[in-house]
Amino acid sequence: MSIHSTAIISEHATIGKNVSIGAFTIIHDNVVIHDDTIVEPYCELGVSNHLSEGKALVIGSNSHIRSRSTFYEGSTFGPRLITGHSVTVREKTEAGENFQLGTLSDIQGHCKIGNFVRTHSNVHIGQHSEVGDYVWIFPYVVLTNDPHPPSNVMKGVKIGNFAVLATMSVILPGANISEGVFVGAHSCIGGVTEKDMLYSGSPAKQIGLASKIKLKDGSRKPAYPWRNHFNRGYPQDIIEQWNKEQSENV
Amino acid sequence: MSIHSTAIISEHATIGKNVSIGAFTIIHDNVVIHDDTIVEPYCELGVSNHLSEGKALVIGSNSHIRSRSTFYEGSTFGPRLITGHSVTVREKTEAGENFQLGTLSDIQGHCKIGNFVRTHSNVHIGQHSEVGDYVWIFPYVVLTNDPHPPSNVMKGVKIGNFAVLATMSVILPGANISEGVFVGAHSCIGGVTEKDMLYSGSPAKQIGLASKIKLKDGSRKPAYPWRNHFNRGYPQDIIEQWNKEQSENV
Amino acid sequence: MSIHSTAIISEHATIGKNVSIGAFTIIHDNVVIHDDTIVEPYCELGVSNHLSEGKALVIGSNSHIRSRSTFYEGSTFGPRLITGHSVTVREKTEAGENFQLGTLSDIQGHCKIGNFVRTHSNVHIGQHSEVGDYVWIFPYVVLTNDPHPPSNVMKGVKIGNFAVLATMSVILPGANISEGVFVGAHSCIGGVTEKDMLYSGSPAKQIGLASKIKLKDGSRKPAYPWRNHFNRGYPQDIIEQWNKEQSENV
Repeated sequence: MSIHSTAIISEHATIGKNVSIGAFTIIHDNVVIHDDTIVEPYCELGVSNHLSEGKALVIGSNSHIRSRSTFYEGSTFGPRLITGHSVTVREKTEAGENFQLGTLSDIQGHCKIGNFVRTHSNVHIGQHSEVGDYVWIFPYVVLTNDPHPPSNVMKGVKIGNFAVLATMSVILPGANISEGVFVGAHSCIGGVTEKDMLYSGSPAKQIGLASKIKLKDGSRKPAYPWRNHFNRGYPQDIIEQWNKEQSENV
Repeated sequence: MSIHSTAIISEHATIGKNVSIGAFTIIHDNVVIHDDTIVEPYCELGVSNHLSEGKALVIGSNSHIRSRSTFYEGSTFGPRLITGHSVTVREKTEAGENFQLGTLSDIQGHCKIGNFVRTHSNVHIGQHSEVGDYVWIFPYVVLTNDPHPPSNVMKGVKIGNFAVLATMSVILPGANISEGVFVGAHSCIGGVTEKDMLYSGSPAKQIGLASKIKLKDGSRKPAYPWRNHFNRGYPQDIIEQWNKEQSENV
Repeated sequence: MSIHSTAIISEHATIGKNVSIGAFTIIHDNVVIHDDTIVEPYCELGVSNHLSEGKALVIGSNSHIRSRSTFYEGSTFGPRLITGHSVTVREKTEAGENFQLGTLSDIQGHCKIGNFVRTHSNVHIGQHSEVGDYVWIFPYVVLTNDPHPPSNVMKGVKIGNFAVLATMSVILPGANISEGVFVGAHSCIGGVTEKDMLYSGSPAKQIGLASKIKLKDGSRKPAYPWRNHFNRGYPQDIIEQWNKEQSENV
């Protein structure tokens, strides 16, 4: 365990084995950090808030929280959480394993996030969002929730497994992005979508099968489903399963 | 008064009664913080700058400035300012009472903001913006000011009372958004607008009366003016006035 | 030299003459800061990373790094770097002289930036971007790089000298923005462009010569090339060269 002398750690926090905590970081009372986790400088973990209803902030093992990140109490993350810098995560965020959250991303809380979800920088996840497994969200994408803001009606979005939301897209309140859908850059999309299709534009239209997009690596193979050609950072057992699926589908 | 031992507070700053200042926060010389205010950790208040012309930063009473926020000297906020995390506010920002500024928002200074204005996360308010009362600004909205950047011509935008700017809209230089206007998500809008109308698209077009949008709460009542159904967080006297107006208009 | 007592400076870092380092700032081992530079509070310089391959972070002389900024090791900046607050700069960023990087901007590294480039707030520069000289990039612009994300194909964008990218535009992977091009606000642009032209919309179309845009200062002179009417902050020898070019072109 390596805790910098300038860090401020509550004696009520539960810190696992082999946890490293950087300079000027603050860990409040209601925090559980599992083993082998790195918390970089200037982080504040476990900000208290009545909306957390007393629930702890739980950070899974083997996580890496980069500098200047703020987490409220009342959220739970599986093992291998990796954040960029300056993320903000409010209460009642439930995320699975291997969640990667990009620099400056802002999770408003009260939402569910599956396993192996990766967001790039500056992604905004509104309250009541439900994000599946293996989802990719690119910079400046906003998941909204209020169909006629401001109001008391909350219609969080649903994002299916393997979906990809490209740069600077707005996902409108109540949108249901199906499994394997690709939303093009700078789109504005709402409503219901069909599996494995490409949507693009503002307002977004269905363009065709995402698999019509070809890889620009000379192979001219379909670029989607992306797991047929991209597996960097996923565990070996998952990669093998994807390879098996692909060979069966050919 | 509760000032954390690691905070660095200038002896020239004026700190009111019952003010709480968090760890690692810096308060510079030219700052006035009124009573009953909370300043969270890692804030820096009163950054000096020649453009401030020696004017102080004034934070009204009962305010709450969340962590990692940066305020320059030379701006004034009425009572009950509430910020999210990591806001940046430059000099010569004049805001009324009950201003709420979302996480990561960036006010460029030299602008006026009315009473009861609320911005969500990551809102950018350019110099020379004039924002009325009871305005709502949603995530990733940018208020611009230069009609042909870069240039020395500054045409700040005007936002009328009760206007709503939805997610990821660009308000073009010199735009005049009238009272009660609703700008849809992912729009790009300039020029003059008509009161209480809905504008949407890029470039934005006038779609019709904002009141044509119906509440998705089963009531099918008009969603706008929003104050006819939404009043969370506003003081009782204002809510009563809104109720009275509404009953007179029916 | 003025180093705040709370700053944490590695004895292996190389700090020039007359360098000022603010409170709670961290300077790691592999950092070279040249003379007459200001580093504000809460900065972290020289974050180590295996992708930096042991290269130092080099900050040119007469620079000013504003608070809460994060720089990895392995990047080089010429003299007179000026940043806003809370910028993040990853490894292998090579920038020329007089680079200005706005508040909350996020450089993903592995990119080249010319001389006298200015970005406004919240600009995202993806890996493998190549930005020329005298380029302006306005708020919430994203330079992308992956033509079918996620994938292993990287096609960084190229931005020519004197180009202007207006607010909230997406520059698609592999886009080649030619010298003097103006991309309008809220555009989405890819492919090849022609010199000195205006592009606007999503998807962006060629509208005509950028010089058709007239200055809104009463003169009705062309607003582009911008260097014919705007030279604030550029050195005298460059301004004289621009004036000479202009008089020869008339």
